[in-house]
Amino acid sequence: MKKIEHIGIAVKDIDASNALFAMLFDKPHYKIEAVESEGVKTSFFKAGPNKIELLQATNEDSPIAKFIEKKGEGIHHIAFAVDDIHAEIERLKSNGFKMIHEVPKKGADNKIIAFLHPKSTNGVLVELCQDIED
Amino acid sequence: MKKIEHIGIAVKDIDASNALFAMLFDKPHYKIEAVESEGVKTSFFKAGPNKIELLQATNEDSPIAKFIEKKGEGIHHIAFAVDDIHAEIERLKSNGFKMIHEVPKKGADNKIIAFLHPKSTNGVLVELCQDIED
Repeated sequence: MKKIEHIGIAVKDIDASNALFAMLFDKPHYKIEAVESEGVKTSFFKAGPNKIELLQATNEDSPIAKFIEKKGEGIHHIAFAVDDIHAEIERLKSNGFKMIHEVPKKGADNKIIAFLHPKSTNGVLVELCQDIED
Repeated sequence: MKKIEHIGIAVKDIDASNALFAMLFDKPHYKIEAVESEGVKTSFFKAGPNKIELLQATNEDSPIAKFIEKKGEGIHHIAFAVDDIHAEIERLKSNGFKMIHEVPKKGADNKIIAFLHPKSTNGVLVELCQDIED
């Protein structure tokens, strides 16, 4: 895993949280993106080589809506950048990790992504992500 | 904030989690350190420019013991590297953020650190950290 690509934070009101995190980071978000397949609206902030992704649910069935209902607002997942997501999924499966996505899917921010099941990673929801080549 | 310095993860059994995260990252932890003032034993993994810190409580009154009791194992905090922690604390306070530590304290990994109160940061426990110059 090359670096923490981003940290995902579940929020109830992305406009209010964009203002709050702009004060925290002393600079505004640089992008907003909807991911319809996940039922989320996202915004991105930069912290050097890393990003912070805020996630607001756009419907009740969104994983983010369920997370907030159960645990409240807060850190939702850690995403690690990888060079070869297919190879990494195979390596992790062979080490006994359980994947939520055994086949990578399209995520926000021009990436293909796959989540590991948090039951196999000490309660931490881990995402792998790889840049989509143009 | 220059980068995500590390992500702190609360674990029940640091030896078991060291083995698990070594498989996840495909390399072992590079350091173990006890922080007696916080009642924790920590271990560190590298992911490029970032670190992952596992935290196990060493007594019942440790913030990590209380966190696990309330929320279970999982992501505990995000730490951001800053150049001047005193200036950053002043800037954040003047923007209405509530600090847990208004005066930085000695943390693990040769840093001075200060935490923000998660009530002022959307439920996210944020740590600032600055390297101690030799």
